[in-house]
Amino acid sequence: MSFIQGYAVHAAGAELLPFKYKTGELNPYDVEVRISHCGVCHSDAHLIDNDWGISQYPLIPGHEIVGMVSAVGSAVLGLEVGTRVGIGWQANSCGRCEWCRKGEENLCASAQPTCVHRHGGFADAIRVNARFAVPLPESLESDTTAPLLCAGITVYSPLRSLGINPTSRVGIIGLGGLGHLAVQFARVFGAEVTAISTSASKEQEARELGAHHFVNSRESKSIKELTGSFDLIISTITADLDWAAFVQTLRPHGTLCFVGAPEKPISLPGFPLISVQRSVCGSNTGSPGRIAEMLDVAARHNIRARIESFRMSEANQALGRLRKGQLRYRAVLGN
Amino acid sequence: MSFIQGYAVHAAGAELLPFKYKTGELNPYDVEVRISHCGVCHSDAHLIDNDWGISQYPLIPGHEIVGMVSAVGSAVLGLEVGTRVGIGWQANSCGRCEWCRKGEENLCASAQPTCVHRHGGFADAIRVNARFAVPLPESLESDTTAPLLCAGITVYSPLRSLGINPTSRVGIIGLGGLGHLAVQFARVFGAEVTAISTSASKEQEARELGAHHFVNSRESKSIKELTGSFDLIISTITADLDWAAFVQTLRPHGTLCFVGAPEKPISLPGFPLISVQRSVCGSNTGSPGRIAEMLDVAARHNIRARIESFRMSEANQALGRLRKGQLRYRAVLGN
Repeated sequence: MSFIQGYAVHAAGAELLPFKYKTGELNPYDVEVRISHCGVCHSDAHLIDNDWGISQYPLIPGHEIVGMVSAVGSAVLGLEVGTRVGIGWQANSCGRCEWCRKGEENLCASAQPTCVHRHGGFADAIRVNARFAVPLPESLESDTTAPLLCAGITVYSPLRSLGINPTSRVGIIGLGGLGHLAVQFARVFGAEVTAISTSASKEQEARELGAHHFVNSRESKSIKELTGSFDLIISTITADLDWAAFVQTLRPHGTLCFVGAPEKPISLPGFPLISVQRSVCGSNTGSPGRIAEMLDVAARHNIRARIESFRMSEANQALGRLRKGQLRYRAVLGN
Repeated sequence: MSFIQGYAVHAAGAELLPFKYKTGELNPYDVEVRISHCGVCHSDAHLIDNDWGISQYPLIPGHEIVGMVSAVGSAVLGLEVGTRVGIGWQANSCGRCEWCRKGEENLCASAQPTCVHRHGGFADAIRVNARFAVPLPESLESDTTAPLLCAGITVYSPLRSLGINPTSRVGIIGLGGLGHLAVQFARVFGAEVTAISTSASKEQEARELGAHHFVNSRESKSIKELTGSFDLIISTITADLDWAAFVQTLRPHGTLCFVGAPEKPISLPGFPLISVQRSVCGSNTGSPGRIAEMLDVAARHNIRARIESFRMSEANQALGRLRKGQLRYRAVLGN
C-alpha cells in the first residue's frame, strides 16, 4: 500500500486524530504488517505527553502489535506474506554491534523504538525491520496476545534472566497491564507468588491469575512482615514507594527489579544491600529471540492478557480509561 | 591457656588498653589459635566507635587474623594443632540453616562476627568455631596475608560471583586496604582494570598493582568520559559520591557493587538502570569455602597486601594512621 492510515497526536497531550502517511518503496530488510490488534501501554500515554522528551509529532502510538505480513523486503529471509507476527517496543537496531550479535538487540545503542521517530501501531499497517516481527504460535489468539509483545516480555525477561524456578519466592508490585501478566508468568516458572497492590479489591482476581498471596502495599505493617521473604520483586509501577522497606523484604541474594521507572530517584541504604548480598536492577523489554521464547511459553502454559476490547477508532476512549487507572487489565484496539 | 591477653577499648572511641580475659574449657567445635598477625580494618575503627550500634565493651577488635592452631575441641575434624590458619570477619554461624548448608555461612542470620560480642584478634590468641579457621597455603607469608582475610575476601567475592573474566572491564573506587587488593585480584581474573581514586598521587602505585588506567574521582568530567565503560565497579569507600554518575559509567548488564556502605542513602534514577539492564548490589566478605579459594588464588598469582608493620602493643598508633587515611595500604600488628 502507498499510504498507511492511523491515529496520531499532533502535539503533546493532544487527542488522537485520523492521520495518513505515505510509505514509499519497501526497505529491503523490512516487512509490512497489516495490523489486526494493538495493545495500549502506559508508555503510549507517556509518549503522547512527551514525558520523556523524545516524542516527535505527528506521533502514532502503539507498540503491542499483532498482524499479518503483507509485504516482504527483497533482503528478508524466513518471513513470508501471510505469516501472523507480533511486534513490540522495538522496530530496528544496528544489527552489527556487540549486543545485536549476541541476540540482545534491546541493548543496542542504536535501538529504534516502534513509535519514537517512527509511526506505531494505532494504524492499519506498519513497517519494521523483519528481525523484529516475531511469528506467533498458532494457539494464541491475536487480541489477548497483543499485550504480551511489550507488557508480557517486560515481565517475562527478568524472571528468565534471574533464574526463577520452583524454589523461588517472587513478589509482583502493581497489578495492572504488566503485573497481571507477571503473576501468571511467575507462576509457570514454579515460583511462590505474592501480588502486592494498592487495590484491595484486586485480591480475588490476583488469586485467580495464580498469586498464592496478596498484600496491600498501603499497609506498611504488612510490608514489614514480609522482611526476608522474596528472591525477586518485580516493580511494575511508576509511583514512589518506600524502596528501602522493599529491599528489606528480599532474602539473601534477592533482587528488586524495576521494569517501571519511579518518578523520583530510588533511595537505598547501603547496609541492607551489603549485609546479605541483595541487588537492585532494571530490565527493559526483551530481544526478538526472547519474545519468541516468551510467546512459546505463553502458548504452552495458556497465558493470556485479560483485556478490554476497543475499535481502533475508539483509541481515545481506551487511553482515557488507561489514564484513569480503570482498565482491567489492558486495552486492545482492533481493526 | 586459661587467659587470653589482648588490647581492648572500654568505651566508644576510647584508646586501646591491655586487657585479659578468661577462657574456660574449650568448646567441642572450637579451635584456639595463637595469633601471629592481625590486620587493622576500617571496621575495627567503626566497632571501637560503636558507629553501627552493635559494639559491646570491653571490646578487643581485630578480624584479619593469622596464627597457629594451639588447641582443638573434642568434636573438631580436619584441623590439627600446629596448622597455620586465617580467620576473618566471621567466627561462627548456626551450621544448620539454608545458607550454612549451602556453604554460604556469611549469609547465616545467626552469623557471629569475630569481634562483635566476642573478643577479636588484637590479642595473643583467639577461639573460634573450627569451620572459620581456614588453613593457609604454605607460600603465603603470614603478615602480608592477614589483610586478605577480610579486605581480600571482600573484594574477591564479587569478582568471582559476578563472573569477571578476560572480556570484563572493572573499575575499583578507592585505593586503600580493600582497593589495592581489588586491583590485584581483578587483574588476575583477566579484566581490564581502572583504579578510581581521589589521590592523584596514587597513580603510579595503582599501575604497579596492575591497574591499566587511573582516574581521579574528583574530576566529574573524567567520570563523564567513562560513560558505558564498566561491566563491574566495586566501591570500597564509605564517602558519598555521585552514584547516579557512576551508574552511567556501566555498560549494558553492568553492576555497581558496594563493599563499603556509603554514609547517606544511595540515590539512583530508575531509567539508567532499566534502559540497559544495569544493577546495583552489595557484597559482604565471604564464606570459609570462598576464603580458602581466594587464598589459593593469592598464592598461585602472588597477590599480597602492601602493609605497614606494627607491634601488637602499637595498635593505637596503627589505628591513628588508619583514621588519618595515611596507611599504604594496611596496618598489620604482629605478636
